[in-house]
Amino acid sequence: MADLEHLKKEAAERAAALVTSGMRVGLGTGSTAKYAIEAIGRRFQAGELSGVVGVATSEASDVLARSFGLPIEALDPRPLDIAIDGADEIDPQLNLIKGLGGALLREKLTEVQARRLVIIADHTKLVTRLGEKAPLPVEIARFGFLSTIERLRALGLGGRLRQPGAQPYLTDNGNYIFDAQLPEQFDAAALERTLKGTLGVIETGFFLGMAERAFVAAPDGVQELVRPD
Amino acid sequence: MADLEHLKKEAAERAAALVTSGMRVGLGTGSTAKYAIEAIGRRFQAGELSGVVGVATSEASDVLARSFGLPIEALDPRPLDIAIDGADEIDPQLNLIKGLGGALLREKLTEVQARRLVIIADHTKLVTRLGEKAPLPVEIARFGFLSTIERLRALGLGGRLRQPGAQPYLTDNGNYIFDAQLPEQFDAAALERTLKGTLGVIETGFFLGMAERAFVAAPDGVQELVRPD
Repeated sequence: MADLEHLKKEAAERAAALVTSGMRVGLGTGSTAKYAIEAIGRRFQAGELSGVVGVATSEASDVLARSFGLPIEALDPRPLDIAIDGADEIDPQLNLIKGLGGALLREKLTEVQARRLVIIADHTKLVTRLGEKAPLPVEIARFGFLSTIERLRALGLGGRLRQPGAQPYLTDNGNYIFDAQLPEQFDAAALERTLKGTLGVIETGFFLGMAERAFVAAPDGVQELVRPD
Repeated sequence: MADLEHLKKEAAERAAALVTSGMRVGLGTGSTAKYAIEAIGRRFQAGELSGVVGVATSEASDVLARSFGLPIEALDPRPLDIAIDGADEIDPQLNLIKGLGGALLREKLTEVQARRLVIIADHTKLVTRLGEKAPLPVEIARFGFLSTIERLRALGLGGRLRQPGAQPYLTDNGNYIFDAQLPEQFDAAALERTLKGTLGVIETGFFLGMAERAFVAAPDGVQELVRPD
């Protein structure tokens, strides 16, 4: 069995190979997305890519991309040719849960504009149903957060406020995150609408119908998964 | 014709008269809500009210209430006995547009928990349909705001980003506000759901089915309006 971290880098390189000169590229956030930014940066530095512009989903990704000399622009309404990011769970339809890294709002705002969203992950992220292993991160307003959590519990969701230390975790947008335990059976699209419609909820970590393909590092190599029609 | 400002104070006093000892009271934000906080504060200082606790919807209202010695608590999931606030538009069913003052998210989070929401306003705020005179404030995430505005325009909404000076207006929560021009005909409840469900939208200024009564300063005195069943 090859080293999984090495295979994740290979998965990231295969995703980065889809980037061609002149593209506007959404840059994800997190330890796996980092490999993709590095792979794009190396291709850029080697002169394989020109005229590429990155749109970063976090400060960290912005800084990393710039360290390779990649030009970075703010998100505007123009479409992105591609976006590459990690995910916390991937179901057989390539529906995703994202947001354990805390950047879900910016990632969703960016990646919804991408003509192609390409995911890189390791095989432990593959699930038969969303919520099987990971909680669903739900970004909520700080003001009145206890009341918003009550509203989420009233929808049948367990879970807890993300609080790694003495204070709750704060997103880039100054909000809190409630890590919701999903029930055994649910309709993801309906739950997404209900959650987003809930007072105090800013956004959820469901990325439904967005990913086009995924490169997944597994013990026997990198698998390429394509969203079924 | 009596002075309208004087009548607004009278309207505020009539609303404040609904507060009784021991109540938890939501305190609105803005120039009209200010009169209500002052009226409650005076009653508290005069010893007419005891055991009253305020929950403030803005820093300014917090400071004003404390200046009268009123105890202020953060919003928690317990219900509020009453909330008193202004509004930008009031339709015949006492549906409201709020948020010209910029505190719509905190107001909505607070006032949804009130057993009674009492509005004070002057007669220029009465409309036959919401959006007749005022834009609908829509609080949106800063990140990718131009794309979110495109999504709002795609829903048929005109309007503009609130920008009083060189920089866009920033809410207490660090977001922007898009002041949307509503169409001539629309279903407010459906539009509210659609807007809240739109990526990048944090909250809207629709307060539908929330207000129980309104005290309205008109040239011929203060009118009391009660929500029809």
